[in-house]
Parts: sequence; structure tokens; C-alpha cells
Amino acid sequence: MIETIYGKQAIRETLRAGRRVRRLLVAASAQETGALREVLELAAARGVPVQSVDRAQLDRLTDHHQGLAAEVDAYAYADFADLLYAARAATPPLYLVLDSLQDPQNFGTLLRTAAAVGVTGVLLPEHRAVGVTPGVRRASAGAVEHLRVVRATNLVRALEQFKAAGVWVVGLAPSATERYDAVDARGPTALVVGNEEQGIRRLVREACDFLVSLPMEPAIESLNAAVAGSIVLYEYYRRRLPRDGQRPNASVPATRPARRRPRA
Amino acid sequence: MIETIYGKQAIRETLRAGRRVRRLLVAASAQETGALREVLELAAARGVPVQSVDRAQLDRLTDHHQGLAAEVDAYAYADFADLLYAARAATPPLYLVLDSLQDPQNFGTLLRTAAAVGVTGVLLPEHRAVGVTPGVRRASAGAVEHLRVVRATNLVRALEQFKAAGVWVVGLAPSATERYDAVDARGPTALVVGNEEQGIRRLVREACDFLVSLPMEPAIESLNAAVAGSIVLYEYYRRRLPRDGQRPNASVPATRPARRRPRA
Repeated sequence: MIETIYGKQAIRETLRAGRRVRRLLVAASAQETGALREVLELAAARGVPVQSVDRAQLDRLTDHHQGLAAEVDAYAYADFADLLYAARAATPPLYLVLDSLQDPQNFGTLLRTAAAVGVTGVLLPEHRAVGVTPGVRRASAGAVEHLRVVRATNLVRALEQFKAAGVWVVGLAPSATERYDAVDARGPTALVVGNEEQGIRRLVREACDFLVSLPMEPAIESLNAAVAGSIVLYEYYRRRLPRDGQRPNASVPATRPARRRPRA
Repeated sequence: MIETIYGKQAIRETLRAGRRVRRLLVAASAQETGALREVLELAAARGVPVQSVDRAQLDRLTDHHQGLAAEVDAYAYADFADLLYAARAATPPLYLVLDSLQDPQNFGTLLRTAAAVGVTGVLLPEHRAVGVTPGVRRASAGAVEHLRVVRATNLVRALEQFKAAGVWVVGLAPSATERYDAVDARGPTALVVGNEEQGIRRLVREACDFLVSLPMEPAIESLNAAVAGSIVLYEYYRRRLPRDGQRPNASVPATRPARRRPRA
């Protein structure tokens, strides 16, 4: 299926990540400077046809085109088997599991953070959640093109498979008494983030090894879902990075831990 | 000046914070359950007049009314002198300084996090930045009602006054080599976050005691501005909270530190 995506960053990252772009549409009036020039150079290097169009034609497609659009294949999801394989190969894998996120902006923002911390993969339920739409690709500023995103028909079963592969399944739940920074951040981990209204669904919550929360002042009930998930992702990332600023070496083979509750 | 605000959470928090509400407009068809019932009880307790209106009347005002609107005074900003006083009184104060943030959604989201970590106050430039509009109040889910927000006519001069009062001024800049978690998080601190496109302006950046950045994977250039600011705010909060989960005691008088560069 072909989709049209917008946003200079989203299109640039789609090209950079080597995802297939069928055609680039550029407003005839667009200035070939900065990000647009970069996009055109990438398109030329990859042999992507570029078509000059009236700005009015782009206006009919979207309000937010910045003089540029790209016809691309629908987002290519990865296979769960690949994520599961990485659970054994990489040290330590960090997965992001999104339970029924509804808001494309929040979804895209959280994917951007997930890519920034180099998560091993992202898992979504196939139903009752927003997928990787053109709006999400744009909201992620193209970061989603660098991620492996998997849709699971049964999220609970997928979490059980994670656990069987030695991955700790940690749910972010406002009601949890355990602090998000009081865990062993270096073990193989899948972080589960719920949706904006209901949080993590009951069956998914029950499939978690344990639940953590972000402490906050009493006057405030909750954070934006993308912000909350981002803060916890960065806590894992921060604690996996050595103090000298080197990136963690993800190629070291994992050792499967005993199944007990981790603690800092 | 009177403004109309929307969003059940924004209106509820406006009432909870004791800010002045002149009139509540409720769609005649609205179900008096959950958040709406809570709002009506708060309004009754505070003697706020409630008027039943046609849903169509609210539709003309905004797309996002959820059957409810409130006529309120324009957001009441605090004085910089109050923030500065707190620099000497509270231990340790944590200020958030927003340099020219343009996007109301990002602005509101970051204010929500600022309230969650109990910042001492928020400082904005009076010009070239979005103020606390009804859209921002809504995007913050009402959290801004619990904050002291100050508009500075000259942001650089305000930062100099912070420094003279013993506050460390820390800028978040992607180009900085110092990691955001490699600082003394317990000293009096003002965290400066720049806007979505240009970051912190040059003169403001030069007024910072030092700059920090969030490490990230090479494929990703930057995070959403509200997310980046939220992650750093939480790192300060996290490190100020004792491990037993008690809140930090902000009432202990501050001791003014010597002016040297802090380190972890």
C-alpha cells in the first residue's frame, strides 16, 4: 500500500534509513536550502524520482507539507520473532511496549525518544491502538524509520514469550509503590507504557513482572503519557551508559538471568 | 481581562488552586458524572455561578469543550522578586527557564512536568515566546495553575540576578559535552530550555554557568523540546528525593554556595 508522508525530517529519515520511497513531490516554489537540499541529495543518491508540483496540489493533501511530500510504502513492521531473537543476542535488550496508545502525537513523540535511546524494538497491540500512520511518522520526526516496530495479535502472550526468554517485563503504573529508578536497569527489560486515559489494561498489567511509578508532587495526578514513558526510557539508558560517555556495547551476548525480582 | 478556558482538568485545577473563576458554562446535555461532577462541586464550594448553555453555544467557542467552559481572569503571573526571594529561602530551589518556546502544546506539557516535580518557579521572556494562553492552560492539564510563572522583560538580566543570588544557571544544549546527569543536582539551580528550532539564544546561552546535553544514539539528532526538558527536570527531582520516597523538605533555609562549577 502506498501512503503519502510529510515533514522534512520524516522524509529525510525515511531516505536515510533506506526505506523505500517511490516518489518525491516538491513545490515548484520551494527554496532548495537546508533540509530540503539534504532531502534532494539523498533522493538523488538513492535514485528516487522527484516531481515538481504546484504548491496548491500539496495544500490539497495536507496543511503541514512544508513544500514537500513523499509517496512511500506503508510502514513496514518487523516480526516478533526478530525481537525475541534479539532478547538472546543483545546485552541488555530494552524493549518498549505500548498498550493501546491512542494519540498519534504522543505516540510519535515517544517513538522519537525510543529511537534516541536505541531500544531493541517496539511492541504494539494489533487492535485498539494507533499504528504507524503518516501522522505518527511525522510526529516522530522520522525517528520511527530507525526502529523495529512489531504489532502483536496478542500482547499478553507476547509478554509471556519475553519472560520465557529471560526479559523482565516492567509496567509503568501511577499506582505502583516501587520507584522507577529503584530497579536493576541493566537486565534485559521490556517497559510497558499504557494509554493516556486508562493506563495499562488489567490483563497486560497482570502479565508484568512488576510495576513502577514516577514520584510526583501531590497537587499533580499524572504526566503526559509520552513524557512519562520517555523519562523512564532515559533512566534505563542513562544507567546503561558508562560514565565516560561511551555508548553501551549492544553486541555482547546476553546471559539469561534467573527469574527473580531485580533490585537496585 | 477575561478569558474562556476549556478542558475538564484545566478548569478543575483552576478551581482547586483557588484562582478566580467568574462563571462556569455547562452544556445542558452534559452528564454530571466523574470529572464534571467534581468541577460542579468545587464551583459550588467556591460560590462560582454555573450557567446551563446549549452545546451549540460551546461548539461556537471551541472544538474541544467536553461540554464545559469557564470564564476566568487572564493567567496571573508572579513577580520575579518572589522567585528571587525563594532562591534564598527554599532548599534547594529549582527553577525552569523557557527561552522562546513557541509551541503551546510543548509549553503546556513541560509546565505539567514542572508542576509534577514542584519547581520553585518558571521564568519566560516577555517577548518572542508563547504566554500562558487558554490553550497552554489546557495543554498543561491545569498544572500551570499550581505554578508561579514569571515573565521577564530581560531574560539575561534575570539570569544574572539568579547567579548573584547563588543559583546555578544550567542550559540544556544538544552541543554540550557535559552529560545532564553529571552535575550536582542538589544545589540551587535554574534549568534553561530553548525552543524547538534554534535552542537557547546566544546571549542567554552565554549567561549560563554551564551547558549540559542528553546523550543519544547517533541516528537521532534531537528530542521533542518538552520531553528533553522533562527528562532533565526529573533527573534533578529524582536525585533530590531521598531513597525512602519522602518528599524533599523545601522549607529548610538555603545556604549560599561558593561560585564554582558543580560536579557529581
